[in-house]
Amino acid sequence: MQNRILRFSGGAAIVAAASVVGKREFEGPLGDCFDLHDSTDKFGMKSWERAESEMQRLAFNTALAKASARERDVDALFAGDLLNQCVGSSYGLLDFDIPYFGLYGACSTAAEGLMLAAMTVSGGFFSTAAAVTSSHYCSAERQYRTPLEYGSQRTPTAQWTVTGAGAFLVCREGRVRIREALPGIVVEKGIKDAANMGAAMAPAAADTLLRYFRFGNHSPEDVDRIITGDLGSEGGSILCELLEREGISLRNRYNDCGMMIYHAKKQDMHAGGSGCGCSAVVLASHLLPRLERGEWKNILFVGTGAMMSPSSIQQGEAIPAIAHLLYLSSDETKGE
Amino acid sequence: MQNRILRFSGGAAIVAAASVVGKREFEGPLGDCFDLHDSTDKFGMKSWERAESEMQRLAFNTALAKASARERDVDALFAGDLLNQCVGSSYGLLDFDIPYFGLYGACSTAAEGLMLAAMTVSGGFFSTAAAVTSSHYCSAERQYRTPLEYGSQRTPTAQWTVTGAGAFLVCREGRVRIREALPGIVVEKGIKDAANMGAAMAPAAADTLLRYFRFGNHSPEDVDRIITGDLGSEGGSILCELLEREGISLRNRYNDCGMMIYHAKKQDMHAGGSGCGCSAVVLASHLLPRLERGEWKNILFVGTGAMMSPSSIQQGEAIPAIAHLLYLSSDETKGE
Repeated sequence: MQNRILRFSGGAAIVAAASVVGKREFEGPLGDCFDLHDSTDKFGMKSWERAESEMQRLAFNTALAKASARERDVDALFAGDLLNQCVGSSYGLLDFDIPYFGLYGACSTAAEGLMLAAMTVSGGFFSTAAAVTSSHYCSAERQYRTPLEYGSQRTPTAQWTVTGAGAFLVCREGRVRIREALPGIVVEKGIKDAANMGAAMAPAAADTLLRYFRFGNHSPEDVDRIITGDLGSEGGSILCELLEREGISLRNRYNDCGMMIYHAKKQDMHAGGSGCGCSAVVLASHLLPRLERGEWKNILFVGTGAMMSPSSIQQGEAIPAIAHLLYLSSDETKGE
Repeated sequence: MQNRILRFSGGAAIVAAASVVGKREFEGPLGDCFDLHDSTDKFGMKSWERAESEMQRLAFNTALAKASARERDVDALFAGDLLNQCVGSSYGLLDFDIPYFGLYGACSTAAEGLMLAAMTVSGGFFSTAAAVTSSHYCSAERQYRTPLEYGSQRTPTAQWTVTGAGAFLVCREGRVRIREALPGIVVEKGIKDAANMGAAMAPAAADTLLRYFRFGNHSPEDVDRIITGDLGSEGGSILCELLEREGISLRNRYNDCGMMIYHAKKQDMHAGGSGCGCSAVVLASHLLPRLERGEWKNILFVGTGAMMSPSSIQQGEAIPAIAHLLYLSSDETKGE
């Protein structure tokens, strides 16, 4: 049962998505695709934390507008972020009188929220559910690492927390269907370096993908793209190696949201982007539109999260990681 | 739709529950009811954080044993806690190869997890799902307040974080049914005092209960008990006042997990217990057994959470709060 792939017989589809980003994300290769950006990264707010909450509010409002939906049309919010006690979400979505389910899935939050939205909508509990998440480089640095003013040097495997928020509306019917999902199992392989989250998360992504291929009788060739978020360059190459040892090659159809969001050389973000916002804004602004336009028929979207805290790292604990998989398809006719 | 009460036509029931607590909880009026306790509060671990994780592991294992279930019988874990990045759960449940959904609902986590377990089991996605949560006085003090060694004085409205973990297994059939649920909406009424979480959470509990009574056409007389967790004495009396203004009297059937777990005078825990573990262990060890034994036919269990962080308090933000409601019943024949 633990390897049973979830299917949504009642129907589950992403009907609208919105993305809000900061300056560096706007300057990246996907810059034109994002709905909103602010080159100050502050979104008119006095603190980085408030700016992050404001991004969530804007992203959710924009998703509502795109779906021509009103606040009262949404029955549930599934939201979370990286900040302690997930205050990015609890403050960011406070304006909306909508039942709220707080999540913590680190950078896998977009996938976790979409999976829960798909189950609760397909199961008939909600007509429309939203998944919302965010991260902000400056609030994350303050909390996880060192104050920005220190100008600390970063190691080559370090990822850069994306300043961005993504929001998704899930209904039973829509152009991009959530056909299948496989929730992740927490995996810990002894990585203790918080500046190498890709290495900590790659085994979780490999575990989920292997379970999906084996127990669903699937292969990478069944989909147009397999996209993780966010392993970065280091984690992405480890994932490909781990799967190759099992006789599975992803290389020609694999990419990672953390590697897609910044220019590898021009912007030099080291191992790439990370943070709950990274996979959320890449999915909202780039992956879903390609599915909607029919450029891809289907993708596997694998949200990955590293679930350590600064305290657990200081106490010498290794990093537990998780990967939640969604099979998204624009193909209305394909059987379930 | 936002006020639609969730019903579980596919069936949802709590089939097993377990509780693990520390010294003060064992010395409280419910002491004999808890499954496991450790008078050192350390559970054989070197840090308070590891002790908290160990409590989750023990609670989940005990719930499995009570249901004569094995690890592979459980299809999903819904877990969260108060620690930054919810490491109590991610480390505590790492031993188990079970799909994991991380939650953040502050002290409402037990109710949030049970609600998600009920929806996903009733909806046919999982056969058995578990809700697990914990809190630890010492790990919470270190993170939220001041190091224990400072011996800081507490204000009269302050609540005492319960050292405890609770675990619940949810299946379609069982003796204590989850008949209805109403997820909470985040409410913020301007309370900025983190030592008065009861006052911050009471309006959220009032909002959820009012919506339940109004839109479900219910009244307090429909149930044997209405139990919040954890408003404490301060928040509990505010809740009763708020509802009386609306013409609804809870007094003769109301109680709060935070007021039930410690001896009011002998232990002097000020406004009572709090923390994710509080409502979880009271539900597991006291409320569910009374329903199982038929002493009560039905209760409303309202999990309340204050979703601020130390940073948000330092930045002068008011406290957002939430309350998730579950209608639990031992009455097999009562219609849905």
